[in-house]
Amino acid sequence: MAESRKHELIQPRTLKGFRDFQPREAGAREELIDRARAVFHSYGFAPIDTPALEYLEILQGKGSEETDKQMYQFEDAGGRRVGMRFDLTVPLARFAAQHIGQLGTPLKRYHVATVWRGENTQRGRFREFMQCDFDTIGTDNLSSDIETALVIHDLFLALGFEDFRIHLNNRKVLTGLLETLGLAEHATAILRALDKLAKIGAEKVQAEIVAATGTEPQAAEQVLALCQLTGTNAEILDAVTELVADSETGRRGAEELRRLLAALDAVGVPEARVKLDVAIARGLDYYTGTIFETFLGALPDIGSVCSGGRYDNLAELYTKQQLPGIGASLGLDRLLAAMEELDMLTSTETPAVAFIPLFDEARLHDYLRLAAQLREAAICVEVYPLPKKLGQQLKYADRRGHRVALILGDNEFAASECQVKDLATGEATAVPLEENAASLIAAIRGLVE
Amino acid sequence: MAESRKHELIQPRTLKGFRDFQPREAGAREELIDRARAVFHSYGFAPIDTPALEYLEILQGKGSEETDKQMYQFEDAGGRRVGMRFDLTVPLARFAAQHIGQLGTPLKRYHVATVWRGENTQRGRFREFMQCDFDTIGTDNLSSDIETALVIHDLFLALGFEDFRIHLNNRKVLTGLLETLGLAEHATAILRALDKLAKIGAEKVQAEIVAATGTEPQAAEQVLALCQLTGTNAEILDAVTELVADSETGRRGAEELRRLLAALDAVGVPEARVKLDVAIARGLDYYTGTIFETFLGALPDIGSVCSGGRYDNLAELYTKQQLPGIGASLGLDRLLAAMEELDMLTSTETPAVAFIPLFDEARLHDYLRLAAQLREAAICVEVYPLPKKLGQQLKYADRRGHRVALILGDNEFAASECQVKDLATGEATAVPLEENAASLIAAIRGLVE
Repeated sequence: MAESRKHELIQPRTLKGFRDFQPREAGAREELIDRARAVFHSYGFAPIDTPALEYLEILQGKGSEETDKQMYQFEDAGGRRVGMRFDLTVPLARFAAQHIGQLGTPLKRYHVATVWRGENTQRGRFREFMQCDFDTIGTDNLSSDIETALVIHDLFLALGFEDFRIHLNNRKVLTGLLETLGLAEHATAILRALDKLAKIGAEKVQAEIVAATGTEPQAAEQVLALCQLTGTNAEILDAVTELVADSETGRRGAEELRRLLAALDAVGVPEARVKLDVAIARGLDYYTGTIFETFLGALPDIGSVCSGGRYDNLAELYTKQQLPGIGASLGLDRLLAAMEELDMLTSTETPAVAFIPLFDEARLHDYLRLAAQLREAAICVEVYPLPKKLGQQLKYADRRGHRVALILGDNEFAASECQVKDLATGEATAVPLEENAASLIAAIRGLVE
Repeated sequence: MAESRKHELIQPRTLKGFRDFQPREAGAREELIDRARAVFHSYGFAPIDTPALEYLEILQGKGSEETDKQMYQFEDAGGRRVGMRFDLTVPLARFAAQHIGQLGTPLKRYHVATVWRGENTQRGRFREFMQCDFDTIGTDNLSSDIETALVIHDLFLALGFEDFRIHLNNRKVLTGLLETLGLAEHATAILRALDKLAKIGAEKVQAEIVAATGTEPQAAEQVLALCQLTGTNAEILDAVTELVADSETGRRGAEELRRLLAALDAVGVPEARVKLDVAIARGLDYYTGTIFETFLGALPDIGSVCSGGRYDNLAELYTKQQLPGIGASLGLDRLLAAMEELDMLTSTETPAVAFIPLFDEARLHDYLRLAAQLREAAICVEVYPLPKKLGQQLKYADRRGHRVALILGDNEFAASECQVKDLATGEATAVPLEENAASLIAAIRGLVE
């Protein structure tokens, strides 16, 4: 009775703010992650993973109202209040509190995983996206700050960028100046005002600082002077050092910046890729020392594509053990979009460069044996599964993005040769087909490399 | 006033049935996935990804009551009924219905992703685990069945197994016999009885079939005879062919098995790794042709570690387009546990083979420059971030699993050499330190390869 079983079709669709990754996009993302992982590995960062679902009280921690509102949360079948992770920092803090005794410090970990936020999708944001974080936990030595900057530098080189710039700041510089000016207790209000600098201009920010803190205009002016310093890194550093000279905290911040810049220079990072930028106020509530942001030369408007900094106490909500550390987060989705826009993605719908049409079904075993030989030689190859007309099979190969087709019919087998067709140019060459396929392997490599 | 800010600590813990992956475990899983992906790529399978959350009606489809009960489901902030995916098959069906027009067939995709099931954890199962599926959609040609078996074979070789066996069956064989015996309408009841064969024995199964179908004991005996065939693959195949000779469906099933075995033999898959096993009844409700299960020689009791088969219509709930296909699923978690038990995992807590202690903090720039040179040569190296005593630093390196320590103090720099310490043996050798670090790179490679 199977034929009479009718049903209404369910409309196939994804939730608002969620998306499928088709082969080309998924392949590009995989490649990007592979390259990032290779850089992490090269510095000794190891992967970890944590659950997508956690106890709500753990995820909420000291979270803001906005985070709470955006978090996917529900009661599970066992009556527990649970949430889906909305970042990788809270899970890292929980993980570190739970396992650091066993793992020991310093702990260098990276974590590439999906997070969920029920954000307003009108701003073009997705509700499901991948984060890619790396951190060094349990050290307060500046050598970890230097290493973090070097990792960021290597990440962008590995992804194929040359024109990018890492912006550096140190939270202690502003703290020091505010201490000197007697404005330390107003830090949050001042940061909120400074955050609008690019948008509303110096005059209005100054007025806002005065209004919010009741300080002299002169003091507000000094704060603004710090954030508006321009010149070479050396010039800015000298000016910063002078501005914060009266505060021990400030002097320490300036000294850390000096050592960080000197180390990057010593290891050969071009100065054009490093910018001392006292205006970056990113997460100044959270970070306590070095701060990083990274901008692409070709697309500065998309904002920072790799940000992070140093913190004094990662896991204070979950453990009494003080865990200082430093880390950064690579903006995978933003980078993928940027690389697409800059035409830097080379991925196709197929990972196989070579294509063997099923030209003569009776020869299937021969095709399969040849394909196995090519795979032994690390050449990815697809054998078409249907005995369609050759033209149709080649059209499929073209569409999928295979680079070269290997055409073998009775004539070719009789002559012990293979027609090697470059799918980009349409040109075909006869290549001798030996027992070990050596000529064919060389011909394919010659065409695709 | 920061010091006086007191708070109750939140207990760091994971939900029941969920777990953290620490560096060693996460590294092992990453390596396993990398190897599987390389095999998928070598056959032209491309990655896709789908959302963790889907409309509940899509995930429920024609799902069983058990699936519904196990699914994590809730109402999102927009009032939609949503669920977390519990496998990768339903999302694939939805994905195919939605995108196949654009992507075209055959579509060869793999998908490695996390799924969630609120299972009873007492059976040692996790509520969050990773699946690794690959499928060829939109072809009904046996060459895809052959390729699927070859992929399974290559997967286990790539993971380092030699002693494994792919069990093959074809759903049409049993269907054919049941048709001949006039028992076609009782297929489900008979399959349910056959499923208990290993547990309760042939006699009781026969009795159950008779009771459930009202058929003659002789007919039930024939069904059991089919499922209990032993001998070489050729012997079993001959016996099967004879048993199903009166049914066209059955003859087609036997013929497909014959062609599949012949192709695997022709491509060089050792017969010891392939077993014709008419008893495997896996998912017989769902599969319509070839069926696969894979067992490890060293650990047969953990059950099949890679299973799959051919289906006639992947996405019938979501589209009128008929999409036949074939695929299989690699049991990642089970394999990881097996490889751990068989001592096949080589991953350590760090991906870096080399370790440079911060022996003399004043030499940090030199250490960083040397590390950069090694990374250029694809040697992963960690520079310790704290100027602790050398013994402490080496203890850390030993614990993390670094293989070789590169010790450089004033004496070494003065003599232009590096102490290369094999951390396994404790032996140290002085290696000349040239401008391009060539001798050092060669020495490290010699020790770790």
